[in-house]
Amino acid sequence: MGFRLTPQDTGFYDLFSQSAAHLVEGAAELTAILGAQSQEEREAIAKRMDEVETSADESTHELIRKVNSSFITPFDREDIHGLASALDDCVDHMDAAADLVALYRIDTFPKGVVKQVEILSRMAEVTVEAMPRLRSMKDLSSFWIEINRLENSADKAYRRMLAELFNAEGADAITVMKHKELIDELEAAADAFETVAHKVESIAVKES
Amino acid sequence: MGFRLTPQDTGFYDLFSQSAAHLVEGAAELTAILGAQSQEEREAIAKRMDEVETSADESTHELIRKVNSSFITPFDREDIHGLASALDDCVDHMDAAADLVALYRIDTFPKGVVKQVEILSRMAEVTVEAMPRLRSMKDLSSFWIEINRLENSADKAYRRMLAELFNAEGADAITVMKHKELIDELEAAADAFETVAHKVESIAVKES
Amino acid sequence: MGFRLTPQDTGFYDLFSQSAAHLVEGAAELTAILGAQSQEEREAIAKRMDEVETSADESTHELIRKVNSSFITPFDREDIHGLASALDDCVDHMDAAADLVALYRIDTFPKGVVKQVEILSRMAEVTVEAMPRLRSMKDLSSFWIEINRLENSADKAYRRMLAELFNAEGADAITVMKHKELIDELEAAADAFETVAHKVESIAVKES
Repeated sequence: MGFRLTPQDTGFYDLFSQSAAHLVEGAAELTAILGAQSQEEREAIAKRMDEVETSADESTHELIRKVNSSFITPFDREDIHGLASALDDCVDHMDAAADLVALYRIDTFPKGVVKQVEILSRMAEVTVEAMPRLRSMKDLSSFWIEINRLENSADKAYRRMLAELFNAEGADAITVMKHKELIDELEAAADAFETVAHKVESIAVKES
Repeated sequence: MGFRLTPQDTGFYDLFSQSAAHLVEGAAELTAILGAQSQEEREAIAKRMDEVETSADESTHELIRKVNSSFITPFDREDIHGLASALDDCVDHMDAAADLVALYRIDTFPKGVVKQVEILSRMAEVTVEAMPRLRSMKDLSSFWIEINRLENSADKAYRRMLAELFNAEGADAITVMKHKELIDELEAAADAFETVAHKVESIAVKES
Repeated sequence: MGFRLTPQDTGFYDLFSQSAAHLVEGAAELTAILGAQSQEEREAIAKRMDEVETSADESTHELIRKVNSSFITPFDREDIHGLASALDDCVDHMDAAADLVALYRIDTFPKGVVKQVEILSRMAEVTVEAMPRLRSMKDLSSFWIEINRLENSADKAYRRMLAELFNAEGADAITVMKHKELIDELEAAADAFETVAHKVESIAVKES
């Protein structure tokens, strides 16, 4: 392929892919925690999720160090920083959700939670698949369109759950509070994926 | 008035007025939802409020597109962006409040809510009246002084309501949660109007 | 020490010390409110805390006015602004916590609250001690290391309290809500101190 002026750029794309891979791991732990059979198991999963979050943090810091020390970057420094932070936020919210399950000892879930986590898993998959396409900046629109579609359905599921949660007859108020915090955190994770999609879209528009 | 170097500037002022007009529409829907007689009516109003919010979003995007594509702008690009976003936030919080009423099926309101919405209506009116004065940058101080005064009284009403809500004898906890979220959202709307006033003040100070 | 080119710089360091002194005053009021014997006393303390917050606000505004009007500043304008705001946020959260105690008429506290306030008091002390060292930029690392250590222990205390609060048998839901808001606000104060430490660290790294 001839002489490359910017051999160091390779690293950025790999680091974005690595960052996104943590999202898939995080979504898998969330799926696991919903099916856990005991508080011990839930705590063990929340702990593994903390490790995923720590690794994701390290990927983000590596990206930021790289952007600060590189003379040439594949796209705007600020955009790299923004996308790295947005990916990190997705993991943070998934981690916080798993944490709430263990901390609040939540052992039964409002039924919509499974749907929320399925949507997050799908969001993680399409994100990890999109990252290598940052190199060519091609075929990225299908990524943000799909994320927006998923976010819309996450939003609908979330609102339906809120209505059910707050209008259930004879619900226990403390359980309502716990469930509200959990579904809020999962909704924040879905919103964070939408922010990732917006960042990718704005980078693609600029660079095209 | 002679030759104008920047004929395109007209559009900005009109777009700000248009944006602010949505605030008055939003406040009217909020007033309506408090007086609604049935859940059906509340849902219909929340839906109309969503349409107001969508139109407000379109005005904001038009302003931002205009600022990005204009060679000359009437004042700092960043300030136009900031003011447009601040106006948009007001509508967003009013929309979220109407939404909560419908979603949580709130049919009785803590009495201070009427006061909160009256203050928001007045804030919307003084804001829409102030927008055309951005052109001359004259007589704007009465705008931010009035908004600050209104925000202070909104804040007092809000705090009194919180104290009443949490200290009422024998209150139902789930109702307390619903009311807390509603009055928080209305208070956030009042704060958003204060941000609009701050933005206008800082633009006026710079340009004077 | 010879001729000083930037005599006006002195003011900045003094203003930072003055700003940080309000943190110690705020922490003392928080300690006092936990030991108060009546609602009247709690309201009086919350009022004194409001005055601390007002003074802190004035220090922040003085710093910002100074940075805007000075030709030469001891370090980046943006960094001065950022550190001033971060110090201000600490007081704001402590003030909000005292306010909640009075507003919600909280007369018994979850036991971890004393621990949270002790940590905040220690954070305030090490912050006020660190401010004069901004002048030489020496020996600041012990400051941010200590704040990070304290924030970690605040975080552990906070999480333990949340678990206890939400898993207590037969708890009153409205009391849980009040306590949750209070401990959240105290945790936000601890996070705000960590932000101060991060700002100081990044200034020290840049200037070294």
